[in-house]
Amino acid sequence: MNDTHRLLLAHRSIRKFTTDPVTDDQVRDIVACGQAAATSSNIQAVTVIRVRDGAKRARLAELAGNQPYVASAGAFLVFCADLNRARLAAEAQGGTFCEGMTEHFILATVDVALAAQNCVVAAEAMGLGICYIGALRNNPQAVSELLDLPRLVYPVFGLCLGHPAQDPEVKPRLPQAAMLGEDTYPAEGMLERIREYDAELHEYYARRGGGTKDSNWSLEMKGVVGKEARPHMRAFLAERGFTMK
Amino acid sequence: MNDTHRLLLAHRSIRKFTTDPVTDDQVRDIVACGQAAATSSNIQAVTVIRVRDGAKRARLAELAGNQPYVASAGAFLVFCADLNRARLAAEAQGGTFCEGMTEHFILATVDVALAAQNCVVAAEAMGLGICYIGALRNNPQAVSELLDLPRLVYPVFGLCLGHPAQDPEVKPRLPQAAMLGEDTYPAEGMLERIREYDAELHEYYARRGGGTKDSNWSLEMKGVVGKEARPHMRAFLAERGFTMK
Repeated sequence: MNDTHRLLLAHRSIRKFTTDPVTDDQVRDIVACGQAAATSSNIQAVTVIRVRDGAKRARLAELAGNQPYVASAGAFLVFCADLNRARLAAEAQGGTFCEGMTEHFILATVDVALAAQNCVVAAEAMGLGICYIGALRNNPQAVSELLDLPRLVYPVFGLCLGHPAQDPEVKPRLPQAAMLGEDTYPAEGMLERIREYDAELHEYYARRGGGTKDSNWSLEMKGVVGKEARPHMRAFLAERGFTMK
Repeated sequence: MNDTHRLLLAHRSIRKFTTDPVTDDQVRDIVACGQAAATSSNIQAVTVIRVRDGAKRARLAELAGNQPYVASAGAFLVFCADLNRARLAAEAQGGTFCEGMTEHFILATVDVALAAQNCVVAAEAMGLGICYIGALRNNPQAVSELLDLPRLVYPVFGLCLGHPAQDPEVKPRLPQAAMLGEDTYPAEGMLERIREYDAELHEYYARRGGGTKDSNWSLEMKGVVGKEARPHMRAFLAERGFTMK
């Protein structure tokens, strides 16, 4: 264990920020660290839009289900999966773009997440706090129009960055035995491990919320996977050129 | 800039490893750092399979287009997107699993990449080198069978970990102006920025390969996006329960 490990293990989402600014130099360095992440076939399929404009920030906060920190955080970045830049480059060389491959969609989405997580580590190493905003996918069409995203680009998530004005506890994770297998999928005992984690998370919620939140992981998952999730995504992506052949 | 930033900026893939072992404690700590990454709705949709078995490692190396370091690296991890665990938990609570949502596919794939990138940072902070193996998607069905992956789980990529036996140069990335926009997509001047990067990368390849590799980013992209890529992915994913509604 060294300082970097302690930094990674101390991660928690921050949703309250001071008014201290995030500087241009900080954003440049954070994004440079993001770019340094591995990228499949060097495609570098990530584009970051830093949103400064107050009206756009307010609109994004609203589109993300009224999350006020989207508007108020020191900086807000939108991470986009981008195949448009590779298309431009290929076509400038007399090549074509083979549209609609599921594989290209995966590759671009993974590239974005790898880069974003490096940005997060870089930001936290500066003492900043962060919060991913997956809710940009609530209305990705409106987000795309607001930021003039071309075809073959889609907003994967947002990222709030700022100086923390809160110090929440780190949330416990699944026991490693429930998510790390050796040579095979760790099916054996998985339900027991989930029950152990349910008990741990129940206690965490009771402690953190002053006894007001009565939940556990299984109950959370019942909500998360038990119903349709953003059912517009398929058609939205197809319309942007990600037709998933 | 601090030590963590320097660590992130120094990343390059390592494909030659010494025979020094990666210890169980190291793998445990690396995976714990992976688990600490943000996760959408706390779903923690990542399962890691550490492959130790020699025959399985040899088979995976072969399936990944004969990449020998898949078999020889100190440790090899397969990162899987896993909705099966959430399904189990939800069903144990009397819930159901709403199958086939594109959104759940995105969420799980992003979760895996965030966790994996934290693992990479943790490993590099220990002095280990890494190489992502996207080529596990060359034949994801065979990989799934080899590791007994249940439905609702798919292998996103592999990760070689080990003590570096080479010290390659860091590969230059796109100029930030080509991938960072302010309030809007950075369309303006993008082709010029790509040309600048083409020149830089051309020089890098010439220098690194002793003058044998004559390429640039646009030429690479012509190859990457100009043809069908892993056209089996759509049907494979559907068969595993990721039908993309």
